Amino acid sequence: MLIVMRDHATSDEIDHVVERLREAGAEAHLSRGEVKSIIGVIGDRETIYGLELEGLPGVEEVVRVLKPYKLVSRDFQEADTVVRAGSAVVGGGAVAAIAGPCSVESEDQIVSTAHAIADAGGTMLRGGAYKPRTSPYAFQGLGEDGLEMLRKAGDESGLPVVTEVLDVRDTDTVAAYADVLQVGARNMQNFMMLDELGSADKPILLKRGLSATIEEVLAAAEYVLKGGNRDVILCERGIRTFESYTRNTLDLAAVAALKTLTHLPVIVDPSHATGRRELIAPMSRAALVAGADGVMVEVHPDPEHARCDGPQSILPSAFQQLMDDMTPLLELDRRHWGREPV
Amino acid sequence: MLIVMRDHATSDEIDHVVERLREAGAEAHLSRGEVKSIIGVIGDRETIYGLELEGLPGVEEVVRVLKPYKLVSRDFQEADTVVRAGSAVVGGGAVAAIAGPCSVESEDQIVSTAHAIADAGGTMLRGGAYKPRTSPYAFQGLGEDGLEMLRKAGDESGLPVVTEVLDVRDTDTVAAYADVLQVGARNMQNFMMLDELGSADKPILLKRGLSATIEEVLAAAEYVLKGGNRDVILCERGIRTFESYTRNTLDLAAVAALKTLTHLPVIVDPSHATGRRELIAPMSRAALVAGADGVMVEVHPDPEHARCDGPQSILPSAFQQLMDDMTPLLELDRRHWGREPV
Amino acid sequence: MLIVMRDHATSDEIDHVVERLREAGAEAHLSRGEVKSIIGVIGDRETIYGLELEGLPGVEEVVRVLKPYKLVSRDFQEADTVVRAGSAVVGGGAVAAIAGPCSVESEDQIVSTAHAIADAGGTMLRGGAYKPRTSPYAFQGLGEDGLEMLRKAGDESGLPVVTEVLDVRDTDTVAAYADVLQVGARNMQNFMMLDELGSADKPILLKRGLSATIEEVLAAAEYVLKGGNRDVILCERGIRTFESYTRNTLDLAAVAALKTLTHLPVIVDPSHATGRRELIAPMSRAALVAGADGVMVEVHPDPEHARCDGPQSILPSAFQQLMDDMTPLLELDRRHWGREPV
Amino acid sequence: MLIVMRDHATSDEIDHVVERLREAGAEAHLSRGEVKSIIGVIGDRETIYGLELEGLPGVEEVVRVLKPYKLVSRDFQEADTVVRAGSAVVGGGAVAAIAGPCSVESEDQIVSTAHAIADAGGTMLRGGAYKPRTSPYAFQGLGEDGLEMLRKAGDESGLPVVTEVLDVRDTDTVAAYADVLQVGARNMQNFMMLDELGSADKPILLKRGLSATIEEVLAAAEYVLKGGNRDVILCERGIRTFESYTRNTLDLAAVAALKTLTHLPVIVDPSHATGRRELIAPMSRAALVAGADGVMVEVHPDPEHARCDGPQSILPSAFQQLMDDMTPLLELDRRHWGREPV
Repeated sequence: MLIVMRDHATSDEIDHVVERLREAGAEAHLSRGEVKSIIGVIGDRETIYGLELEGLPGVEEVVRVLKPYKLVSRDFQEADTVVRAGSAVVGGGAVAAIAGPCSVESEDQIVSTAHAIADAGGTMLRGGAYKPRTSPYAFQGLGEDGLEMLRKAGDESGLPVVTEVLDVRDTDTVAAYADVLQVGARNMQNFMMLDELGSADKPILLKRGLSATIEEVLAAAEYVLKGGNRDVILCERGIRTFESYTRNTLDLAAVAALKTLTHLPVIVDPSHATGRRELIAPMSRAALVAGADGVMVEVHPDPEHARCDGPQSILPSAFQQLMDDMTPLLELDRRHWGREPV
Repeated sequence: MLIVMRDHATSDEIDHVVERLREAGAEAHLSRGEVKSIIGVIGDRETIYGLELEGLPGVEEVVRVLKPYKLVSRDFQEADTVVRAGSAVVGGGAVAAIAGPCSVESEDQIVSTAHAIADAGGTMLRGGAYKPRTSPYAFQGLGEDGLEMLRKAGDESGLPVVTEVLDVRDTDTVAAYADVLQVGARNMQNFMMLDELGSADKPILLKRGLSATIEEVLAAAEYVLKGGNRDVILCERGIRTFESYTRNTLDLAAVAALKTLTHLPVIVDPSHATGRRELIAPMSRAALVAGADGVMVEVHPDPEHARCDGPQSILPSAFQQLMDDMTPLLELDRRHWGREPV
Repeated sequence: MLIVMRDHATSDEIDHVVERLREAGAEAHLSRGEVKSIIGVIGDRETIYGLELEGLPGVEEVVRVLKPYKLVSRDFQEADTVVRAGSAVVGGGAVAAIAGPCSVESEDQIVSTAHAIADAGGTMLRGGAYKPRTSPYAFQGLGEDGLEMLRKAGDESGLPVVTEVLDVRDTDTVAAYADVLQVGARNMQNFMMLDELGSADKPILLKRGLSATIEEVLAAAEYVLKGGNRDVILCERGIRTFESYTRNTLDLAAVAALKTLTHLPVIVDPSHATGRRELIAPMSRAALVAGADGVMVEVHPDPEHARCDGPQSILPSAFQQLMDDMTPLLELDRRHWGREPV
Repeated sequence: MLIVMRDHATSDEIDHVVERLREAGAEAHLSRGEVKSIIGVIGDRETIYGLELEGLPGVEEVVRVLKPYKLVSRDFQEADTVVRAGSAVVGGGAVAAIAGPCSVESEDQIVSTAHAIADAGGTMLRGGAYKPRTSPYAFQGLGEDGLEMLRKAGDESGLPVVTEVLDVRDTDTVAAYADVLQVGARNMQNFMMLDELGSADKPILLKRGLSATIEEVLAAAEYVLKGGNRDVILCERGIRTFESYTRNTLDLAAVAALKTLTHLPVIVDPSHATGRRELIAPMSRAALVAGADGVMVEVHPDPEHARCDGPQSILPSAFQQLMDDMTPLLELDRRHWGREPV
C-alpha cells in the first residue's frame, strides 16, 4: 500500500499517519519530496486490508498495490489449472464447447437438444432449471424437475451438464444432478454462496457480474479457492455500458488480461453478452482467438418458441456450423476440444 | 408491446409474426407504412412476457411498452406508501435520518454511537453484522453477536434498527433482531431472497444494484410486493461509471424519477455513493431537495479505527451538524423527520 | 509519480527503471519491500509528463500523483474566482440563473423569451445559433442570423447572452455578439478550440464531456487558463451511463467535488442532463444545495413547437415558479442571484 | 416513429398528438388498445426529425424507428465499400495493417519505423503530427514539420500515410501531406469538421468516440458521406467503462454489428483500446476474426523513449510476429492484405 500525502502536508499529519500504521502492525517507509511526501506500507495481507486511511488529515490518496486475491494468481501458480468434469476438460489447451437452451422446458426439448449438441461436437450441455428473471411475471424455470430432465439428457448424450445454483439453499440439490455448478452474473458477489461452493466437490463456473471489474472477478474466485475448491472456470459474459445495440458489451480484452493474471480457465458466453443471434458466431470465434478456453452458447431446437432468450439462441444446425468454423482456429493455436473418454 | 418490422419486410414475414402472436394468445394490430410496418400487441402481462420475437425473420426491433412491474407503480397506487418501523416513519412527508457505523464492532462502539445518533435527532440506527466484502481477506462482520449488540443499542437509544440480510438462510435470525431488513446492492437481483422477504413481516430496505436501471429496481421491489410485503423502502446508493474520483456516481435524478414512478419511499445513501467524507453533507442535503424521503449515512465515533468504510464515515458531531443543516430544507418543503412516540 | 514494481522484480529491472528516470532528469527514491519495491519519482511537471514507464520490464503499475492541471486548482488559488459578464456575476456567492431556448428560432421567439426570463429574475440568456446535432438531417441552427437575434434579445431584456462556439473558425464572429462563449460537451477536449479561447477576452462556459472525468474537465479548463483567460465557468451536464430513463446521469457529487478541487465557478444544466421536463425543477434545486454556482435551463414559450429539445424545455411560467422555489435555498446558504447594475 | 400513450390517456390527449402530427406534415395511424394506445407516424426524414413530442400531455414514450443515417446503411448500398489510398486497399476482403508511432518525433524515427513496417508487410503508415493531449503540459506534436517527415517516410517506404486532423483549420495542410485523414475519437462529433471532410478528396478514417453508440458512429459517418465523400473507414478504439485495468473497453461486438449495418470498412485500434502492450496481439487477431477489415497498431523502435503511448507501443519485431500470426486467420476467411502495385 502507498499513501500519497497532499501537497505541503504538515509534519504532524505525516507523523500521525506513520504512527497509525505502526499501531496497526504495519511498517511505514517515508519518502519526503519537496512538494509531495509518500509513505510505502509493508505488512501482511490481513493487516493491510484492515487499514483504511483515506480519511486521515493530510492524506490525498491511498494506492493499494496488494491485490485482493492470491490463490487465483499466476504468481501463485504458473501452470494452467485444468478442470475436468465427466468427459469434459477445460484449460491447458483443452477448449470447451458448452451449449444448450436458456432453460430446460421439457424432457423432449432437452434430450433432443443434447443429442444434437453431442453430434456437433459440443463438450458440455447447459440448461437452466432455476432462472433469474428481472420481472417476477416472467417464467422462472422448472426447478428440480428441470434438473432431472437435464441429468437424463446428459446421460443419454454422454455430455456432462452445467446448470446454475440460483439459491444457496439449493446447492446440494443442484450438486446431486449437475457436473458443474454455475454461479450467475447476479450472484458473482454473493459471498455466502461463494463460501458454500468453496466446499463443494464439483467444479464451479463463475460468471462475471454485470458491472464487475477484472479484479473483482478474481477476488470472487478467490473466495471459492480459499474454501478449498480449486476447480473454477471463469466466464466473461459482457458488462453493462451505455451501448444499447447489444444487450451488454463483450469484453474480450478482459479474457486476454485474465489469461495473464490467473491460471484458471476462462470461457466466454457470447449469447448473453450480445443478445443477438447474428453476433454469436463472430464473437465465439473472436473469443477463442483472444485466448478463451471455451465458449458457452445458447442453442434451442425452436428459438421462436423458446421460453427465454429466444432472440439470442441459435439452431442446432447453426451450432454445427459454428463448431466447424471454430475448429481450424484451435488448430492454428495447437489446441483441441476438451473431450476425453470417460 | 410493439414490433417494428425491417424496411420492406415481406408480407410473409409480417404474416408469420402475426400468426405467432395469435398462437400465443395475444392480439395483433398491424399498421403498414410505405417503408416500415408496425405491429401493436395487446394481451395479458404473463402472455406478453412470454413472447420474445426479436429473432423472427423481418423483425427489426421489439419495443416493450408494458413495464416489468405493476404493484409498485404510481398508476396502481397513487398515494405515497408510508412505512413504519418502531418509532420511525418513512414516506408521505415523513423523512428518515438513518445513521450508524458500517459494521458493528463492539457493544461499546454501537451503543455509544446509537446514543449520539438519537441525541442528534436521527430516526433509525444502522449497523452491519454480516459484511459483504470484495476480498475474502477483509473483515466479514461479527455475525449473530453483532445482531445482539445492535438490538441492545437500538433498545437503549430508542432507535429502531436496520441491518443487512446477506444470506437468505439468515433471514429469520436477522428478522429476530432487526426492525428493518436491508437487501444490499449486490443482492438486489437475488430473486430468491426477494421472494423470501416477500413473506417477511418486517419492512425491507432495498438498495439499488451497482449497475441496475431504474426499471430493474422497481422490478426487484415488485418481487417483494408480489409476495405480500408492501413495506419496501428503496435506496439509491450510486451506480458504477467511469468516474473514479467518487466511489460510485450518485444518481439523484433517479430519486426524482422514482418519486414520479412509484409510491414507495426512496432514500439515499451518500456514504457508499461517494466514498468521501467531505461529500456526505452536500449530497445528503441535495438528496432531500431532490425529493428523497430520507438519508442513510455512516457515522462512527472513531473513523480512523473503523474496521470498514472509515474514509466515508463521519463523526457524531458532524452528523449533528448535518441534521441541523438538513432541517430547514425539510421545513421549506413542509416535511418533517419521521419520528413518533412508540 | 510512483512506480510499483511487480512482485519479485529483479535488481536489474529495478536498476533499469531508476536509470531511465535519471536519464530523463527526474529523481528516483527507491523503497524495497520484501515482496514489492516501490520507486518514488520527483521532478518538474513537464519532465514527469514526458515519462511513460508502464511498459518497462518489471513494472506493474505507474501511479500519477501529480495532477494534469495547476492553475485551476484550489491549491494554486484559494479564493473563489468570480466571473462577470455584463450585469451577470457567477461565483463567490453570486449564483447564475441562465435560461433560454435550445436554439434561436426567430427574433420574436428569442426576444419574447428573453423578456420573460428577465421578468422571472433570470441573470443570463442562453440560445444556440449553431447546433451540434447527432444526425445531419436535423435542424442545425440559424448561424450568424441567430447570433444577431440573440444579441438583440439580450440588449432589449438587459440580459447578457451566452451561446456556443461550435466551430473554432467562428470564434471571432461569436465573440462579436456574445457575452460568454460556450464550449459544448462534444468540444470539451477540442484542444485547439480551448487554446484559441485561452486568448479570447470573453468568459468561457465549459461543459463537461459526456464521458469526461472530473480530472479531465479540470485539465480542459487548464488549457484556457494557461492561454491567459482566467474567466472559466464549468458546467456539469450529465454523463453517459447504462441508465436510459434519463438522457444522461446528472453527477451532482462531481459538483461538490469540483468545488473543493477548483476555485472556478461550477454550474449545472439539468435540461440536457435529464432530458425530462418534470425533473428540471428538483434537479435545479438539488444542484444549488450541492454547491453549484448556478443553473442553466432550457425555457421555450412553446415547447411543443420547439425546433430542438422540446421535451426538456419548460415554459416561462414554470421558470418563474422555479426561480421562486430556488430563492429560499440561496437564502439558507447566504448566497444571492448574481445580478448587478451594469 | 411510434408514440406510446400513457395508460388511460384521454381522447383529448390522443387527438392533440394526432393533430400536432398532421400540422407538421406527418401521417398518424392510431391503434387504440384497452389500456394503451399507440400512434404510428409516417413522413419524410426531415419532417420526422423535426418532431419532438416526448413532452406532450399523455405521451409516455416516443420510439424512433427511423435511423439517423441513410447513405452509410447496408440497406442503401449492399456491396462493401472499398477504400483505396495509394497502394493500400481497405474493405471487400482487403485487410489493412496500419502501423506506426503515436507521434512523429524525428525524421530518423519515422523513416526507420516506416521501413520496418513495410518490411513486415504493413499496408499503411500512421503517425501523429498534432497530438490531442489531456494535459496542456504534455507533448503536443511537431506540427507541419511532423507532416513533412511523415510524408517523406511514406514515400521512402512506399507506404501511404494516415494522420489526424486535430483542428479543422488545418484540413488543407494535412491533406497536402497525407493519403488518409484521421478524425480522432474526441472529434467524432465535431460536426463542422465532419462537414469539412465531406468535401475533402482524401479518404477519412473516423474513430469512434469514447462514449459514442454504434448509431452515433454511423450518424457521424453520414455527415461525411452527405458532403460527397464516400471513402470513410470506421475505427473501433474502445469505449469508456468502469473497467480500469485496460485503458478502454474494446467493443468487438460493435465491429461485427457494424459489418451488418453498414457497407463501410471497419478497422480496430487495439493499442488505444487496451493501453497495454501484451494485449495488442490477441486483440488484433480477435478483431480480424470478428470481421474487422484491418487493424491499426502503435509501433515504435524504442518504446521506452517514445514521447507518447510508449506503454502500448510494440517493437517492429513484435509487429513482424503479429503479421505472421494474423496472416493465417485471413487465409481461413479467404481474405488478403490490402496492398496493390501503385
